[in-house]
Amino acid sequence: MLNRSELVLYTDSSPNGFKATIALEELGIPYTLHHVKVDQGENRSPEFLALNPYGRIPVLLDPQQGITLFESAAILLYLADKTGRLLAASGPARWDAIKWLMFHASSAGPILGQRVHFEMFAPEPYPPAIERYRRLSEDGFRTLDQQLASRDWLAGTDFSIADIATFGWMHIARIIHFDFSAFRHLTAWYERVDARPAVQRGISLPAPAIGP
Amino acid sequence: MLNRSELVLYTDSSPNGFKATIALEELGIPYTLHHVKVDQGENRSPEFLALNPYGRIPVLLDPQQGITLFESAAILLYLADKTGRLLAASGPARWDAIKWLMFHASSAGPILGQRVHFEMFAPEPYPPAIERYRRLSEDGFRTLDQQLASRDWLAGTDFSIADIATFGWMHIARIIHFDFSAFRHLTAWYERVDARPAVQRGISLPAPAIGP
Repeated sequence: MLNRSELVLYTDSSPNGFKATIALEELGIPYTLHHVKVDQGENRSPEFLALNPYGRIPVLLDPQQGITLFESAAILLYLADKTGRLLAASGPARWDAIKWLMFHASSAGPILGQRVHFEMFAPEPYPPAIERYRRLSEDGFRTLDQQLASRDWLAGTDFSIADIATFGWMHIARIIHFDFSAFRHLTAWYERVDARPAVQRGISLPAPAIGP
Repeated sequence: MLNRSELVLYTDSSPNGFKATIALEELGIPYTLHHVKVDQGENRSPEFLALNPYGRIPVLLDPQQGITLFESAAILLYLADKTGRLLAASGPARWDAIKWLMFHASSAGPILGQRVHFEMFAPEPYPPAIERYRRLSEDGFRTLDQQLASRDWLAGTDFSIADIATFGWMHIARIIHFDFSAFRHLTAWYERVDARPAVQRGISLPAPAIGP
């Protein structure tokens, strides 16, 4: 029987979806999971569009608070502030984490998304676009690598929602062979995040991602 | 003489830059403005890369708090929380604003950026990419139009950082003739935002944007 006060997550196996499942597993709070099968068009159903008119997963509901959220970065900020975990409450540590969360959400993540399109899904290969998104995604990898050269986690000493957001996409990057092994600090960070039990649970929900 | 406790903004005339200047003008708090001339490569100087290793404007410093921020969405969240304005302190109104801020920052804004590249800067026109980004940016316009059909502002009754972020890009969309006039609620919202005196000051700092 559904506990009406429980969080509800609508998601699929994707870079943005895994950000939400990893965060929920790290926090260890109860939630109901709904698998929205994007490849079957379930994200275009009237019921789902009522939750997110843009038709994208993940969506988080907090019925007790009357809150419906889409956009994975908004969901991560919400879960962190709701629980007081995975993000410092104030000061430079908080804003460093939010800065790197936004670097992923607005800069590095969208570029990886376009790279996937032109390398994997475009009906015919167009070398200038493939080249463009390879170059821009490497710029992102280099920026992360530099930040991680002197820190265990993106915002410094504590694992945060910035690491979770970035890992969501880097996990997919590795599965689809967007090679970032030349960036050794980024690669070492990847292994640190990947070793966390909650992260392993998160990337298997609602199902593991499938390679190319 | 520089007031050491004052905020410092490094910016240029661009969609993301105007988000920061509009917010600072709306808030009416003192700040020092540095014009980083991206077309002259000033964003690649060692001094600027020390502030943002990714080499993008805007960057905000709050010397009194020891905070250096890049990514316009992070800057908007910071200014709102610092002042207690342009964003509700808690509850559904806060999270609606953050959700639409993130919709702009991660979904609609990056797509407009790629549309600009393929329509205006790519060495040769590639119709499938132009078509792709027109279609996706129209999806974004449609989503915003639907949200604004029954509200004055994106998050409901109060003008917020979600409106500022979205306007930063829509202002450029209008200048470069990415037509959104068919979306009448979005267009009416645009005129409401554009009529605000602080917005007019913001889009003239450090200099007005130049059309195509």
